[in-house]
Amino acid sequence: PFHVDWDLEAAQKQGFDWFMRKEIFEQPKAVADTLLGRLNDKGELTLDELRMSPELLRRVNKIVVVACGTAFYAGLVAKYAIEHWTRIPCEVELASEFRYRDPIIDPMTLVVTISQSGETADTLMAIRHAREQHAKVIAICNTNGATIPRESDAVIYTHAGPEIGVASTKGFTTQLVACYLLGLYLAQVRGMKYGDEIAALLSELERMPEAIQRMLDAKASVYDLAADLVDANSVLFLGRHVGYPSALEGALKLKELAYIHAEGFAAGELKHGPIALISENLPVFVVVPPKGRDQLRDKVISNIAEVRARGARTIVLAEADDEEAGAVAETLIELPKVSTLLQPLVAIIPLQLFACELATVKGHDVDQPRNLAKSVTVE
Amino acid sequence: PFHVDWDLEAAQKQGFDWFMRKEIFEQPKAVADTLLGRLNDKGELTLDELRMSPELLRRVNKIVVVACGTAFYAGLVAKYAIEHWTRIPCEVELASEFRYRDPIIDPMTLVVTISQSGETADTLMAIRHAREQHAKVIAICNTNGATIPRESDAVIYTHAGPEIGVASTKGFTTQLVACYLLGLYLAQVRGMKYGDEIAALLSELERMPEAIQRMLDAKASVYDLAADLVDANSVLFLGRHVGYPSALEGALKLKELAYIHAEGFAAGELKHGPIALISENLPVFVVVPPKGRDQLRDKVISNIAEVRARGARTIVLAEADDEEAGAVAETLIELPKVSTLLQPLVAIIPLQLFACELATVKGHDVDQPRNLAKSVTVE
Repeated sequence: PFHVDWDLEAAQKQGFDWFMRKEIFEQPKAVADTLLGRLNDKGELTLDELRMSPELLRRVNKIVVVACGTAFYAGLVAKYAIEHWTRIPCEVELASEFRYRDPIIDPMTLVVTISQSGETADTLMAIRHAREQHAKVIAICNTNGATIPRESDAVIYTHAGPEIGVASTKGFTTQLVACYLLGLYLAQVRGMKYGDEIAALLSELERMPEAIQRMLDAKASVYDLAADLVDANSVLFLGRHVGYPSALEGALKLKELAYIHAEGFAAGELKHGPIALISENLPVFVVVPPKGRDQLRDKVISNIAEVRARGARTIVLAEADDEEAGAVAETLIELPKVSTLLQPLVAIIPLQLFACELATVKGHDVDQPRNLAKSVTVE
Repeated sequence: PFHVDWDLEAAQKQGFDWFMRKEIFEQPKAVADTLLGRLNDKGELTLDELRMSPELLRRVNKIVVVACGTAFYAGLVAKYAIEHWTRIPCEVELASEFRYRDPIIDPMTLVVTISQSGETADTLMAIRHAREQHAKVIAICNTNGATIPRESDAVIYTHAGPEIGVASTKGFTTQLVACYLLGLYLAQVRGMKYGDEIAALLSELERMPEAIQRMLDAKASVYDLAADLVDANSVLFLGRHVGYPSALEGALKLKELAYIHAEGFAAGELKHGPIALISENLPVFVVVPPKGRDQLRDKVISNIAEVRARGARTIVLAEADDEEAGAVAETLIELPKVSTLLQPLVAIIPLQLFACELATVKGHDVDQPRNLAKSVTVE
């Protein structure tokens, strides 16, 4: 396993006003580090710690991802990727709910926990409960030797380096990478993907730091937008498929930092209620799927047209050459061309930048938002 | 099957200012009607239309509930009840997401759709997709002979009578009843519950109209609260377990009718982000589980203490003799003693009354909220 050493210097802000902003800009490196050293000498993907046999992983018939907060949204993305690549049914549960509802798990269930600190109390209780039912547990974690990885059967470490800002940023994107790696690992041990298919997906993942860097380089227009929207009372975020968890995470960042009402919706749900909220000039961020996903993308474009017709201020994240998306956008944030499942890695960047900047211009303490602790070690 | 005839007179407001308010007050009858005639001459539960064999239902190894909006929240409650009573794993999916993510379903999967109108386009597309994979489909629907029940393998009709108000109320509570009936039916055909156990649960369901009536009789204090909070910019709703979907539905009613930001959270998620939103005098509704659910209830009580310590105005729905809940409540809404799984049937009533009244005092058109249609027949 590859190790990234943490040291005191890394805990400095290096010229940034906030740790959070520094961590946003560290994401190309954090993602690259999380991808480093994943192949063994036979060219096969490996996990960091594996206290269970690959035979056992071949018999798994259900995956339950258990997490809280931002890590839960990474888990929602994991569901789409794991089901698509492995065809193993995958559920995603809030750790605090999972523990108290007597979930149906057995020795053929693989529980995947995601926790930056590895000490999240709700998640820890959930895995203890799962292991009592003889389920196997894989931890995705950013902290070497924390309690959750110690009590798990296998571990994928994210190599994000220390995350000091309370609102998770590089923690989230590296969790996404770890989820993709897990999906590919399962596809490999179960023979669902050929070696060359896994190599192609890995190589696309390896191009993501560059794509993230492009999003960071476009920061100025996102900062301008934040200055412009400093008095917004609320902001909505819409997405479909993996764009839905991106919308939820974009909204959570605003809640945590700007203390304004921000809510993420599955765009298809809009007309079943939330569209009543649309009023003149309400800012609505919409994540548009890649152009290649015809039907899904077309439906999101028509959702944007619907909210725009009702006066919303549409801020659209779409591929640069998506002219129809551009036509319904009041503000267009261009995304590089990446495949559908990986899009959250780039779409989340402007949403993080927006939340950080909006909170800054509002005069809030970005690194220490009110009422929040970095690692929630009580249930 | 028992039939309730719909006629023109039932479509009048009968002295109420809004169809919605009339429909809220019709819930004791709607719930009772939905329970009527469910037993055959051998004392066994029956479905309304069954175009599949009970043998087939015995082989089901996964249930996927597919719905939109309010019906989706009824589905979230169904998951808790079905898993608890039958131990069949149950997932709940937004119809608009289910259709476009290539879900893992097969002939052993039972798909349950919930739609008041039976014409919801997203849900209809979802069941067509499910049937192409040879999954069996059970529809829960309020409209005899609508497209969704016609295209399903079995039907449970809710006998709510016509629902005219765009924001669903008696539609929701009767959907809950139908979900409970489905859970009990599955438990019966699979031998997971003895006849006397099913009879006991049915008899508790039959006492629910009276419990709902008690909640309606206490309307005055809820109306006072609405008048008091007429200027609130946002309202949060918290719950755990089946109280979580209750919170989501309470929030959706406010979005639909009062056009203010209202969001429901799993109470355990509070400290993973949303607690940053808590500010002085922010109204926070909290649904407290029955006293008998020790650990779960204790955790909700401490969540209430946390938001109260940060200045929130706590409006607590708890059993009348729950003194600890009363101690952390600025406003207490008393719930009758019912078992955990059935609590949403009573907890939702004051949340419906609150939304209806708040929208009324704000001067909004409660029956025709802006931007919304009663039945969403486009995807």
